[in-house]
This record gives sequence, structure tokens and C-alpha cells, in this order.
Amino acid sequence: MNDAVLGSPGAPGAAGTADGDVGLLSPVSASPLVAALTGDRAVLAAILAVESGWAAVLEKASLAPAGSAAVVVSAAEAGRYDVADIALRAQGGGNPVIPLLADLRKQVQALDTAKVGGSVGALRAVHTSLTSQDVLDTALMLLARNTVEAVLADLKATTGALAVLAERHADTLCVGRSLTQHSLPFTFGLRAAQWFHGLAAAGRQLESLALPVQFGGAAGTLAAGTVLTSGTASNPFNLADALAAQLGLATAPAPWHTNRFAVTSLGHSLASVLDAFGKVATDVLFLSRPEVGELAEPRAAGRGVSSAMPQKQNPVLSVLVRSAALQAPHLASQLHLAAANFNDERPDGAWHTEWPPLRQLLGLALGAAGQLRELAEGLQAYPDAMRRNLELAGPLLLAEGVAAALAPLLEEKDGRTGRQQLQEVVDRTLEVPSAEQGAAYRRLLREAVPAGRLTDLRLEELLDPAGYLGQAGEISRRILTAFPDFTSAGKPLTDTDANGARRG
Amino acid sequence: MNDAVLGSPGAPGAAGTADGDVGLLSPVSASPLVAALTGDRAVLAAILAVESGWAAVLEKASLAPAGSAAVVVSAAEAGRYDVADIALRAQGGGNPVIPLLADLRKQVQALDTAKVGGSVGALRAVHTSLTSQDVLDTALMLLARNTVEAVLADLKATTGALAVLAERHADTLCVGRSLTQHSLPFTFGLRAAQWFHGLAAAGRQLESLALPVQFGGAAGTLAAGTVLTSGTASNPFNLADALAAQLGLATAPAPWHTNRFAVTSLGHSLASVLDAFGKVATDVLFLSRPEVGELAEPRAAGRGVSSAMPQKQNPVLSVLVRSAALQAPHLASQLHLAAANFNDERPDGAWHTEWPPLRQLLGLALGAAGQLRELAEGLQAYPDAMRRNLELAGPLLLAEGVAAALAPLLEEKDGRTGRQQLQEVVDRTLEVPSAEQGAAYRRLLREAVPAGRLTDLRLEELLDPAGYLGQAGEISRRILTAFPDFTSAGKPLTDTDANGARRG
Amino acid sequence: MNDAVLGSPGAPGAAGTADGDVGLLSPVSASPLVAALTGDRAVLAAILAVESGWAAVLEKASLAPAGSAAVVVSAAEAGRYDVADIALRAQGGGNPVIPLLADLRKQVQALDTAKVGGSVGALRAVHTSLTSQDVLDTALMLLARNTVEAVLADLKATTGALAVLAERHADTLCVGRSLTQHSLPFTFGLRAAQWFHGLAAAGRQLESLALPVQFGGAAGTLAAGTVLTSGTASNPFNLADALAAQLGLATAPAPWHTNRFAVTSLGHSLASVLDAFGKVATDVLFLSRPEVGELAEPRAAGRGVSSAMPQKQNPVLSVLVRSAALQAPHLASQLHLAAANFNDERPDGAWHTEWPPLRQLLGLALGAAGQLRELAEGLQAYPDAMRRNLELAGPLLLAEGVAAALAPLLEEKDGRTGRQQLQEVVDRTLEVPSAEQGAAYRRLLREAVPAGRLTDLRLEELLDPAGYLGQAGEISRRILTAFPDFTSAGKPLTDTDANGARRG
Amino acid sequence: MNDAVLGSPGAPGAAGTADGDVGLLSPVSASPLVAALTGDRAVLAAILAVESGWAAVLEKASLAPAGSAAVVVSAAEAGRYDVADIALRAQGGGNPVIPLLADLRKQVQALDTAKVGGSVGALRAVHTSLTSQDVLDTALMLLARNTVEAVLADLKATTGALAVLAERHADTLCVGRSLTQHSLPFTFGLRAAQWFHGLAAAGRQLESLALPVQFGGAAGTLAAGTVLTSGTASNPFNLADALAAQLGLATAPAPWHTNRFAVTSLGHSLASVLDAFGKVATDVLFLSRPEVGELAEPRAAGRGVSSAMPQKQNPVLSVLVRSAALQAPHLASQLHLAAANFNDERPDGAWHTEWPPLRQLLGLALGAAGQLRELAEGLQAYPDAMRRNLELAGPLLLAEGVAAALAPLLEEKDGRTGRQQLQEVVDRTLEVPSAEQGAAYRRLLREAVPAGRLTDLRLEELLDPAGYLGQAGEISRRILTAFPDFTSAGKPLTDTDANGARRG
Repeated sequence: MNDAVLGSPGAPGAAGTADGDVGLLSPVSASPLVAALTGDRAVLAAILAVESGWAAVLEKASLAPAGSAAVVVSAAEAGRYDVADIALRAQGGGNPVIPLLADLRKQVQALDTAKVGGSVGALRAVHTSLTSQDVLDTALMLLARNTVEAVLADLKATTGALAVLAERHADTLCVGRSLTQHSLPFTFGLRAAQWFHGLAAAGRQLESLALPVQFGGAAGTLAAGTVLTSGTASNPFNLADALAAQLGLATAPAPWHTNRFAVTSLGHSLASVLDAFGKVATDVLFLSRPEVGELAEPRAAGRGVSSAMPQKQNPVLSVLVRSAALQAPHLASQLHLAAANFNDERPDGAWHTEWPPLRQLLGLALGAAGQLRELAEGLQAYPDAMRRNLELAGPLLLAEGVAAALAPLLEEKDGRTGRQQLQEVVDRTLEVPSAEQGAAYRRLLREAVPAGRLTDLRLEELLDPAGYLGQAGEISRRILTAFPDFTSAGKPLTDTDANGARRG
Repeated sequence: MNDAVLGSPGAPGAAGTADGDVGLLSPVSASPLVAALTGDRAVLAAILAVESGWAAVLEKASLAPAGSAAVVVSAAEAGRYDVADIALRAQGGGNPVIPLLADLRKQVQALDTAKVGGSVGALRAVHTSLTSQDVLDTALMLLARNTVEAVLADLKATTGALAVLAERHADTLCVGRSLTQHSLPFTFGLRAAQWFHGLAAAGRQLESLALPVQFGGAAGTLAAGTVLTSGTASNPFNLADALAAQLGLATAPAPWHTNRFAVTSLGHSLASVLDAFGKVATDVLFLSRPEVGELAEPRAAGRGVSSAMPQKQNPVLSVLVRSAALQAPHLASQLHLAAANFNDERPDGAWHTEWPPLRQLLGLALGAAGQLRELAEGLQAYPDAMRRNLELAGPLLLAEGVAAALAPLLEEKDGRTGRQQLQEVVDRTLEVPSAEQGAAYRRLLREAVPAGRLTDLRLEELLDPAGYLGQAGEISRRILTAFPDFTSAGKPLTDTDANGARRG
Repeated sequence: MNDAVLGSPGAPGAAGTADGDVGLLSPVSASPLVAALTGDRAVLAAILAVESGWAAVLEKASLAPAGSAAVVVSAAEAGRYDVADIALRAQGGGNPVIPLLADLRKQVQALDTAKVGGSVGALRAVHTSLTSQDVLDTALMLLARNTVEAVLADLKATTGALAVLAERHADTLCVGRSLTQHSLPFTFGLRAAQWFHGLAAAGRQLESLALPVQFGGAAGTLAAGTVLTSGTASNPFNLADALAAQLGLATAPAPWHTNRFAVTSLGHSLASVLDAFGKVATDVLFLSRPEVGELAEPRAAGRGVSSAMPQKQNPVLSVLVRSAALQAPHLASQLHLAAANFNDERPDGAWHTEWPPLRQLLGLALGAAGQLRELAEGLQAYPDAMRRNLELAGPLLLAEGVAAALAPLLEEKDGRTGRQQLQEVVDRTLEVPSAEQGAAYRRLLREAVPAGRLTDLRLEELLDPAGYLGQAGEISRRILTAFPDFTSAGKPLTDTDANGARRG
Repeated sequence: MNDAVLGSPGAPGAAGTADGDVGLLSPVSASPLVAALTGDRAVLAAILAVESGWAAVLEKASLAPAGSAAVVVSAAEAGRYDVADIALRAQGGGNPVIPLLADLRKQVQALDTAKVGGSVGALRAVHTSLTSQDVLDTALMLLARNTVEAVLADLKATTGALAVLAERHADTLCVGRSLTQHSLPFTFGLRAAQWFHGLAAAGRQLESLALPVQFGGAAGTLAAGTVLTSGTASNPFNLADALAAQLGLATAPAPWHTNRFAVTSLGHSLASVLDAFGKVATDVLFLSRPEVGELAEPRAAGRGVSSAMPQKQNPVLSVLVRSAALQAPHLASQLHLAAANFNDERPDGAWHTEWPPLRQLLGLALGAAGQLRELAEGLQAYPDAMRRNLELAGPLLLAEGVAAALAPLLEEKDGRTGRQQLQEVVDRTLEVPSAEQGAAYRRLLREAVPAGRLTDLRLEELLDPAGYLGQAGEISRRILTAFPDFTSAGKPLTDTDANGARRG
């Protein structure tokens, strides 16, 4: 093997510490915010927060010595731990809680010089009657809660920006497209409103998720917790509820160690958000193509550059958002697969397969939310180009409305209904060169309609795209009204630090 | 190509009619009920029901001639249509609504000899101002609604049966297992209750889904509907709501032609149900293995046979349910992938990719629900075998509880905490042959605990599995209480016809 | 439940028979050819072909009575069997071989009136020493072989058509696009050649696949086969090879009942073909959009119509091909998932999950191959539109080549390299309105290059797109040369019957 | 947001550097070896190796100044670069090559004090006529090559160990299982041989993969390369071949920037390896369950521990391997999805979705290969337990062979064939308690067979499991013979450093 390719191997510890993955191959989620909320150190911090929270719960219930929680909280400062070393040792038991716990106990013993409450001291507040899965499930819910909050902040800023576009462009004509072809007159406002619709519906679902605490003990019977609380005023269910309150998570009616609906629903909600993001990105990618020119991404120094072509300006925000959306379905699916394989009281591999996809979904959602927010807040719209594209199809774009309006005026002829006669008008119009279709269509329509039943004015009304917008405005209004908490733009990212934190 | 292999090609029409797929390669869903509710003819019937429903809505709103709905309903009888022929012609426009509509119009014209309401007659009530996607989206929601109802009926019968098991076996001891190894004493009642928990939570989610009507017209602006209702007391939104009422579907605040949250959520809910089914099936498969023998599937004539081995009795119900559960994640994922690619006002392929997985999910859920119901209603439990397996691990199975109870009694020795000393007792016990571990563990424990602090009685209490069940009973009770509408068994399948309909 | 929606329920048997699925929800694969090669009746015929083939092998080896194979072949005529009934009964044992075998034995007994070779008669040639998995695995390989041959025929016709386009348009200028933006001058010939490249590479892989016979007996030890051949000149390995020869399949060194590499590799090859198809379809969908207009699908009566918009002409072939390509990845993945879960000597559900995705992949590949062939053979190219789009970007499209050619002529200035100076020229050009960029770029370049080092002629050469095509022609030539067996167009589909068989 | 949970946010730069992910949530692949071969720093090193290799190629072809390659090689030392900073800046252009290149150019300028070959100096050797995709595609192939070599080393050590087990246990009786039930006598040797079979077949495929160099330039026309080599003895194709030789990769007949067969095939091969690993792990997990006890994982200090239960010994190696195998299918699928969406000359998101799954597949395959090697090299087999489980089923396990041997001796009775009569014997035997089935089966068989046709000796022969193993030994031999390069064990891992490198 080529040593040069491997980089300097050095001491394993050093390599582990220095060489952690920072998102080099996932630009959409390579940001300090994503790392801070979903990275390995955040996982470690969440695990420690659960252990600290539990110590507090135990002490409050007089199940651990007074003062022990403070020791544990102090010992649980994330900076005290070597993540890389813990990750390596996690292979031994198959999960990171076990080695972290050993280190936490050492830290507690070292800090607990006064041996609070007797010879065992603050150790009595550490992990008592918990099992690894209790801690890791709860920690991942905590991680998810923090990340989801950040996703929703960006998502609402995005829907706020889209709501503004929907209103500003309520009358901006463009063309509707289906199966790539021009279908009917449309408005850019309604397009923005439908983007809003997708984001807001998925966002509301994400916001409403219950992210529950887990507490079941080694086999899900709460056996150790029962011994622990025996003869006290507490019981294991109270303790679980207290932990939920302590951490700001939802309570659970019972241990859910083998029923992963909370996990798959989280995955579904994140994937749904990314679906909605992907829809917007895919549309923007098309609409900002040089041949179309209806939209443009906001420019920023250094963004969209190419390593080979000096003149290129790539729509990088949309590309990255789309790259996230294309990955989410598989990740959500992986969570269902785990759930379907949760055998026994703790499974033989399926549980372990939840962790990478869940974390990736959180990272992709948060990364993409930031990119899309920037895109939506700075999106450039070009009504002239929209109009030009609308006119490409000529008057036949109005053929549906023309048929609806004129068919009743026609009498059956040679066994053909009015609608069929009007289809023939369309077919014959399509046979002439496009530049002449406007005139041809008008002439053929006049020939088809019995004299006196169609005035020139009425015909031109029928051929005016602005006259065939249906309920475009009302639909937009209804959508925005249905999601009032998604219409006001988020706190602006004016602060330099925040900005720095977001995009480095 | 080998003609013999292809079967008799014959006339295409005949082949099409005779050769439709009947589930030969999907035994879990090869049932008349699944075919009746999700098969191609059911799709066709649902499309026709939407067109009929729409005619009724139009007539009621005086937007179609009096009497036209009756003609359309009559023309829309599914038996009038050649499904195979329509499927072939669906290639032309890319969806089945277009050719079906042509045939429906012919049927209406043929039946409408009196030309209700004038020269165009009942035709005016057919598909007016709708587009293919309106009809197909709504039809698939209708299909889903019917199938979901049937899934829920079987699911509730299953949870009813599991609730009975949970109560009957509340005190039936067995062993809890994690990562394949014995962890702690458990009860079969709690296992059944947790199976119930998974099914009930997923079932409740499925039951609460909104399955909305779709109405947006060609581009989602309701343009044709606006022309249609112009100058009348109706508007397109009223018509959509009326259609929803007519078909028993949910209303939608706006067209959702490009936002597929309703579809992905349906997929997620079905996959979640199948996850919960899969968990049960996987457990039953293990627990009914010859080496384990704790459970057995109900026997039925002709079930579980092998083509080679005359003595074999395969747990076919579980195998089939598991085969469905392993397929659901990918299918749900496919729906997300479609949603993320819904470009423009109607996409260039993504919409088409929703249909097969959605229908397969419905079929798998319904098929598996039926198999699992039969399994749960007839599941055989063997408490003796459960007890035998529980005792395999010997007294060390209680080591967690022993440690929790005895550690406080031990003093620190040579810098080792009481817990560490008890771990050493376990380690040393593990070194002797398993048959002797019971005696060794007791002896070592007595040596470790200072004299006088541990009576024989107390030690035997600590080593009694029945004494270390924690909250097994209370957890079961809480679970059942949380889902009262899932605890009563469904209508029994005593009726011969129903039985026949279910399993052919 | 609404009876009208369910269609006429009628007798279960009748419903089962009449209501098989015919592809209503999968237009891309709804064709008589796909049904004939991959439908349930084809599966049944393949199973029967395996049993017949085995009878022939046994008789030839004197392990079954003379004359018995003829009886079995006659009894195995697919028309004798009720597929729907067998599908229902397949639930009992979890696979269709078991009930089919029962029926086959009855047919053999009925036909074998003379009791060839003694009291047991021709029955001795039926399934002797086989197990269900031997038969079904082999049958699916047979089905795959037949379908793959048909896929390859269409694929080669398509590559033949693409090779013609590659040569015809070797000098047809268009623009290359990356991340949606214009990158460099390109040729339509090279685009066609790269499409060819994708199809030919995947096609070659598909063509080279070994599709092996399966023979292992009940547990994969060939125990029954050993008893059968004991004391004869045969052994089970010879019999397996003879069956392979009889059916035209590959031999296998050993039973592969638990190692599914043959199945996953087939899935990968089919998915790879569909990937290549999808790439073409996605490009055609974009290039035939009204705003782009570089390509158009061939028209055909009744194709591309809309149910609402009389003027629309949808690119249905591409839409359908793309819909297939978007489904293939999940299906191939399902096969890997099965392989990873093949526990024991025959798994408890995983095997069953291979059948639906494998069959769907075959159907999608064959359906899409037909659609793409029609597309490629009739694709319309519009060089004028290609040229128009190429010119959209103006002279900056040549900036990479300009930089490469001129940078060496520039001297370092204020610490900026020649390349950096030329990037500044581009940046400044981008600041003027696009209509004026041509003039501005030329002027700024002349200013940047030291006097006398750049003639007008040389500058115009550098700005001529046709002069910056690199190896477009040579790359095309190399690609076509690398796949000589894919360059000649397939047999034309002139025959009416064939046409009918293809598109109904 | 709770600061404590996020850990110390600190300066973004610092956080980025210190907090890279080290595999905390993916224990199966959390090893220094996986990090060294697939981590972000390895990616960066591979990119730099491609740029260095290219400089060498250019210099050798006299297309860059003499001495420039040495400068570039020196500047390209991976330690000079800040991976976290590059990852952040990669958002700007959507890939890491662009910012890395900027830094590389600075390093080259800083080192190139002598300005080799003139004012531009060694810069002329950097990235000239390449595009980002050329570099990244080639770099990932290089990364894959290195990782695949390491995977194959572990895989061959594993197959070596399995070959030893196959031979050592050629006569070790156990029971074959299908659909969870006991099917026929089997040998542990054949089981090991079939595991070998799966690994060797997938390994051979992985070993035979062509991992090609990519060179196409900005649009895949080699335009810049053509300008560069114009008038020299070189041409772009020669340069590409030289780069392949320089890096030890395969050549490609043409740029493959839009045809991703090489990538999907790599994904398929890795997934196939993981499928085979998963099959073994799943079997070991079952066979080492307490109720079964046929196998045990090798023990190691600190492995298999539980955070709650002091006596537990989890089969962690198998759990981790299985967790990898359950993730591979989705990852391979993601690569196909990318391939199917590779629109234009470089796609708008699909390319970016290849990177995470490809890297994860490599990491999972390498991680799992190491775990499985350790498992196979230390696997404990318990023939007594195998025998005990074999005997659970009693003599009925031999019913297939009995039927085959005795059916010819029976005459038709009341219209039932001999085979049917023997099925009745089985059915009646199944009605008695299992302890009595041995006697009952023998008695019923004697009653069924006409007197004098079945001696006691023959009956006992028929009921001896060792007599009904078919070709178990010969099949094993054939499998091992088919893969001679996989049968010899790898270099033993005796060296402390290697061990340390492997498992930390």
C-alpha cells in the first residue's frame, strides 16, 4: 500500500483525534452548526447530559446522596473525554455508552474527593438502574430535539421568504408545466405558495413529533429501577417522567426499546422535510438554466465557481439541497428496516443500524435547511423571462379554456361533438409553423363557431393568459392562511458571528 | 425463444385477459381479499367511482344536466371495461385515466339515448374540468381508504388476541434476551403486551391519517373549474369538498398535486404497521424453533408442508409476514424518492413511480395483517419450555439484581468498590462448569458479603427469577390502557364464507 | 365498505381468475411481451419446464422409466393449470411449487394410463430428489434468461440507432452542460456516443452473466440424489449438469441455495441497464422541453395525449423510461437485503423477498427497453436549436481555452499570474449586459495581452466553438470501437405482428 | 438551545478541527485502519496524490517544466492542509477539489522559490487541463483500490480459516435447517464450506474489478488537454493512460463522467461481500444462542460486556458484522440512483450523492472484514451440542430418505401410492409424544412394509443420520477447489502493532 496515499499514520491516538471526518464528502452538511449539533462530540455530550440528568433525578428523589448530582454534572463536562478513544473502545461492547461510562465513573471518583454521602459517594448517582439502550436512545432523542429546533428555525425563515414571494408575485404570469411541456398559464406567486405548502406541511409534522425519553432497564422490565425505588416514595415511572422533564423530552407510557415507531417517525418527518426541499431545489435548478432564465440563485463571493471554467456560475445551493433530498429516502428506509428487525428484547444488530442513518438525516436536514434558507431569502425572479417562456406555446396554451367556453356554442356536426370539433381545430393548428399558429388558431376557431356567437373581443379575452388563471391567487391565500406560524420570516441572520457559524 | 416456456401465446387480448398476475410470487398477499381491494380491477373501479362521484357533484350543483349522474353511474360499472386493453393503451398517455375515459365516454353516449339535458347530454357530467391526476390521485386515496379499513380490522383482531395473551400470561415466566443472550427474567405476558404496543401505535397512526381528495385541474390553478362555476352559486373549492364528502375522503385546503406528503405519510404508516408485524414474526420464528420451543404457530390442513420432507412443519404464517416486513422499507422509500423529484406542476416520471409501491404496500399490509391475525388468534404458548430456557443461564441471570442489592452491604476492599467485588464473583463463577455455577455463585457471594449481612432466605429470594420481574405487570397494564380501542378482539372469523374469502 | 368500489365480488375463484393484474399502474411495462415473458403464467410455465426437463434428465440416465418424460412433458403443458388457484394454495407452504406439484402429479397420473415402467409409472420422473427451492431458483433463472435475451435485443437495436446518431451528428455543434450551466462546446454526436457507451457497457455485463441451474435437495447435501443414483453410472453432479444443458442454463460448481450472488448480480446488471436508460431519458426530457427544443420524441397516434389539454404532446416514452429507472435501485437493493439475510440452509423469509423485485426488475427492464428503442429509432434532432443554445453563453463559453492559450503570453503583473489576470477579464466581462459581452470580452482580452502577441485572426479562432471541441470525434470513435457487437441496429420491427406484440 | 448539550462551542475553526467524527456511532468501522484508508484525510491525500501524479505525467511528457513534479509532490504532502477548513470552503463550489486546489497552488508557489522553468514555474504542472470531476473520480478510485486491497487481505484470511473449519469438521454431524425447522442431517464442515463459498465468490468479483482513471476535462471532450498537447508527441489519451499507470489504476477507453457503471459495480461488489459476511454473522448469532450452543465467538478482554448485566457475554463481532450487512443494500442502491440521474455532461446533484455512500460502503466492508476475520480465526465449535440438536427431531428427520428407499417396496393400497402410505406413517408418528416417536416410527414402518422386505439392520441404517449426508463432503471439496487462491490463511496477526492498528 502506498504510504503517501494514507497520509502520515502516526500514533493511533493522534490519528484518531486529528483525523475525524469533517464533511469533506458531504458539502451540503459541512458546517460548524451541523457539526456542533450532530457530530460525534455532540453525541458524546448528549450521552453525558442524559447521565447528568439522571443523577439530578436520583438526587432529587433522594435515591442518590445529596451533592452527588453536582459532582456528576461536573465530571460530565464533554471536554474531559477523548472521543476517538471512546469510539475505538465502543467496539468491545458494540456501543459507545459502555466505555464512556467507565471514563465517567473515573472522573466522578477523581472529583468526588469528599465522598458525598458515604464510601461509594457520587458514584451511586451514575447510571444506576439504567442500561446502555436507555442512555443512547434518550441521548439520540436529545440530539434530535436540538437539531430539529435548528432545522425548524431555518425552515420557517425559508417559508417566511417564500410567503413574501407568493404575495409579491401573485400576479406575475408564468407558464405551468407538466411532464416537461407547457400546460396552462400560471403565476410565480402560486409556485412559491406551493413550495411554501410543501415545506410548511412537513415542518408542522416535524414540529409536532413527540421525542420520548427511554427508560426500561436491562430487559425492559424496570427491574433494577424497582429495586432502587422499593420502599421509597418514588417508582420507576415517576423517575422516567422526571428525566423527561429534566431534559425537555416527551414522556412515554412504557419502555419502547423494541418498538421503534418514534425513530421511524422522526426519520419520516425529516425525509418529508427534505422531500419538500428537494422539490424546490429541482424546480430552481431548471428555472435558472440559461435556456429558461426565470430565476437565479443569490450570488456570494466564492460560490458557484468551477475548477476549470472561469466563466461558470453554478447554482450550488440548489445542487447541494438536491443532493441531500436524493439521499434522504434511503436513510429513512434504513430506519424502517431496523424497526422490522428488532428481535428479542434487544436485537442482534438492527439497533446499531439506526445510528448512522438517523444522524445523517439530521445533518442533511440541517445542512440543507441552511442552504435553502439562503437560497429563498436571496432568490432572484425575472418576470420578463417568465412571460417570454409563457408565450412560447402561443395561443394553444389556452386551448383547454377555449374548448370549455366554446364547446357549448357548437352544434353536433357529422356525429362529432363540439369538443371533438375543437380538438380538430387544435390538431390543424399544430400542423402550421409555430410563428403562424396564432393567426391560424383564431381563423379556425371563427370558422368553427356559428356566426354571431363569438365576438372578437370575447375571443381575445379567451386567448389572454391573464384571464385563465383560475384560482391561482385564492389557492395561494388559502395555503398561507393554513400555516400562519410559517409565514413570518425568521430572525434575520445579520449577526456576523451567526453568519460565521452558519457558513464558516 | 422457447415457445414451450412462454406458454401458449395465443391472441394478445386473450393472453392479456387470462394471464394477469395473481400473486404467484407473493404468497403473503395472494388472497381474494387483497385482489379485490388492491388489484387492477379495484383500481379501475376506484377511477370509475371518482368519475361517477364527480358527475353526482356536478349534477347536484346544477353544473350538469339533471339525470346525467345516473347515466354516468350506470356507464361506470366496472364490469363494462376491459382492464387489459386499458392497461395497454395507458402507455400512450402514460396513465390509465386517459384510455378509460375514452371508453367511459363511449359507454355514456351509448346509454344516454335520451340525451339528457340537450345535445351533449350526460357527457357534460364526465370529467368536466378535471385532469388525469385529479382522478388518479383521488382514486388511489379511495383504494387506500378501503384497504386501510380492512387492514385495521385484522390488526385490531390481532391486538385483541395479543391483549388476551398479555393478560393470560402476565405471570408466565420466561427469559429476556438481548443481543441473542439471556439478560433478565421476563414474562411472556409482557412480550405479548409489547407486541401489542407496536401494532397499536402503528395502527392508531394509520387510523388517523387524512386521505384527501385531489382537485386542481390541468395545472393546479382550478382554471377550468373556475370557468365552469363562473356565474353560479358554486366555486371549485365547494366542488372539491363535495367530492370528498361524496367519496368519504378528507378535504384538502388546496391542490396537492406537487406536494406528496399525503402519499409519503400513507407509505410511512403502512410501513410502520409492517415493521410492527415484522417484529412479532421474527420473534415467533425464533421462539418456535425446535431448540427453543416456547411457541408454535396454529396448525391448519395443508399449511407448512414441504415439497421434499414429509415430517416438516414450517411456520409459514411468520415466514410470510416477515417476507412482507422486509419489503416495506424499500417501498416506503420509493414514495419519498418520488416526492423529492416532483418537478414542475406535474413531474416527468416521479408521479408514475408512486403507483406500484403504493399498491404493493397496501397489498402486503393487508395480506400480512390476515396472516398475522390467524397467527395471533391461534398461537400456542409453552410455559414449560419458557421456564426451561429461563433456567439455562442459572443464577447468574440474577446477577444485576444481586449486585444492586448487595453492593451497598460491601465495604471497599483493596480500592475495589462493592460493585467491582461482585463483578469478580461473577467472573469467577463463570470459570466453573455451568452445572456447578449455582453452588459456586452462592458460595462466593457468601464469602464476599460480611458475615451476618446476608441470610440464606434473603439470598434465595434474590436468586428467584419471579422476584426480579420489576414492573412487568404494570408496564403491560399501562400499554393496554393506552390503547383501549385496540384491546377487544375483532369479529371472530367463524363464518365459512369469510374464511373462504380470506384464504381461498 | 362500498361494494361498488370493489367491483363485483362474485365467487372468489372467478374473481381470482378474471382479475389478475395486467399492469394498469405500470404503463412502462404493460405490454403483451412483458406479460408473456415475466407474468405469472410465464413463471408457472418455467416451473413446469424445470420439472419436465428434470424428467427428461432422469429418463436419459435410466433413473425413471422409459417413456415417463414424454408423459411429464405432456402433463406439464401450462394451459392445464389454474394459476390463480395455485397462487392461493401457495400460501400453505409459502411457495408455488408445492401446490403446482400436486396438480402436476394428478395430471401425470391421469395421462399415464399405461403406467409406464410399473405401478408407480411416470410419477417416478416427477420432482424425484428435488426440493422446492431447486425448482423455483432454476425456474426464475430460466425466466430471467428468456427475458434478458429480449432485453438485449431491444438494447442492441437502441445502441445501433445511437451509433447512427453518433456518426451522423459527429460535427453537430451543441453546448455541454454541467450543474445545469453551459460549460463548453460539445457535439450531439458525442452525446449520442456517450449514451451508447452507457447502454453498451451495461448490456455487455448483462450478456455475460452466468445464470446457473440449482440442485441441492432438501438441505443442500444432495442426499436424495445420492440415494437415487447410488449403484448407477450417474451421480447428482452429472444430473445437475445435464439439467443445465437441457434448459440452456449455466452449470454451478455446487448448490448455491444460501449464496445469492447469482441473484444479486442479475439484479445489479438489470439495474445498471436501467441506469443507462434513465440517463438517456433524463437528457431527452430536458432537451425536448419547449425552452430548449434540441430534440423531440417520435410521434405516434394516440401517444402523448392529455386528458385535459388538447394541445399537449407529452414525451411519454422518456417519462415511462425514467419512471422505470427511478424504481430499479430499490429493487436491486431488495435482492442484496435478501442475500444478507439468508440464514440457515433455507431462510425464514428472505428467500421469499427475492421473487417480487426480481420479476419487477425484469419487467421494467424489458418494458423500458422497448420504449427506449422506439425513442432512439425515431428521435428527432434539431441542430439549429442546438446552435442557438450554444450561442446563449456568448464568447465566455470559450474562456477555458482562451485562458489556456493566452496565459503563457502574459507576464506576471502586480503579483498576479497570467491565469489570474484572465480570470479578472472574465469577471469584468460578466459585469456588462450579456448582449455586449462579446465585444467587451474581445476588448478586455486585447488590453490584457501585450501588444503584438495576439492577432485578430487568432482571437477569432479561439472564440470559435467549433475550434474547441477537443477529441469529441475521437472519443466517439473509441467508444463505438470498444463495443462492435452493439453498433449494428437490430432487426427492424416492420412486421405487423411483432409490432402488435410489442405495443398492443 | 442548551449550551451544555452542544459541548463547548468555542471558535468555529477549532471546533471543526477538534470535533471530526471518529465513528462513535458506527462501532463496526471505528478503527484506525478504516480511518486511515477511508477517512477525510485519506480522501484529501488521494486528491493530492492525483494532482501529484498528474504533475509527474505532465513533466515526463515535457508538458510541464523539468523539476515541477518534485515541487508539486512536496507541496502535496497531506499534512500541509487543514481538512476542516477545506470541507467548509467546499460548500462554495460543491466539491472539495476547488478549495484544495487553491491551497495547493499557494503551497506550490511558496515552495517554488526558484520558479522552475520560467515565471509561472511549477504551477504549470498543477491541474492543467483537468476538471474537478477528473480529480475526484480518480481520487475515489484510488481510495477504493487501497481499501479493497485491505478488505481482500482480511477476507482471504477469513476464507482461509473457514477452509480449515470445512476440512476439520468434514464429518462433524449437525442438523440442516430450513424455514427455522430441522430438515436433514448436515455437517458443520459443509456449513463452513458454504460460508467460504459466499465470501470467495464475492471476493473474487471484488478482486477482478477494474477501477479506472477519469480524464475528460471540463465537458468530457478533452478540449483543454487537446490544446495542451497540440504540436507535441503526446495526446490526451496517452496522458490518461500514463496517469493510470502512475497511480496503479485501470485505463478507460473514454471519459466515463456520465456513465457510472464503474461506481455502481464497485458498490455492488462491496455489497456482495457484505451480503456474504452477513450470512455468516446471522448464522453465528443463532448458533451461539444459549438454547443452541453449537458455536461461540472468540473471547477477548473487554469484549461483549454489558453496561447493566455483569454476567452477559454478547457476540459482539457478529452483531457488528450483521449491522454492516444490513446497511450495505441501501448504500449500493444510492449509487444506482445517482447513476440513473446523471443528467447533462455533469449532473445537478446526483454526482454529489455518490460520495457518502461509496465511502461508507468501503468503511463498512473493511470494518466488518476485520471483525469477521477475528471471528473466523477464533470460532469455537461444539460438536456435542450439534449432535444434541440433530437428535431433537428424532428419526423423522430421516423421513425423506426412508420414503425414497421404502416407497418402491410398497404396493398401491386402496388407491394410495407407496409414497402416500409413508406420509401417513409420518403423520401418525407426529401424533405421539416426541419421546416415543422413535419407537412408534419404527413400528409403523414395519407394519407398512410387506413382511420380509425390510430387515432390522436396513431400517437402522436408514435411520442413521451419518448415512444420509449425501454429497456433503464432495460439495465442500468442490467449493474449496473452485477458489484455490482463497483457501490459504492470510498472514497471521501476531504482530502487536498490526493488532493495535486493527482494533486500537
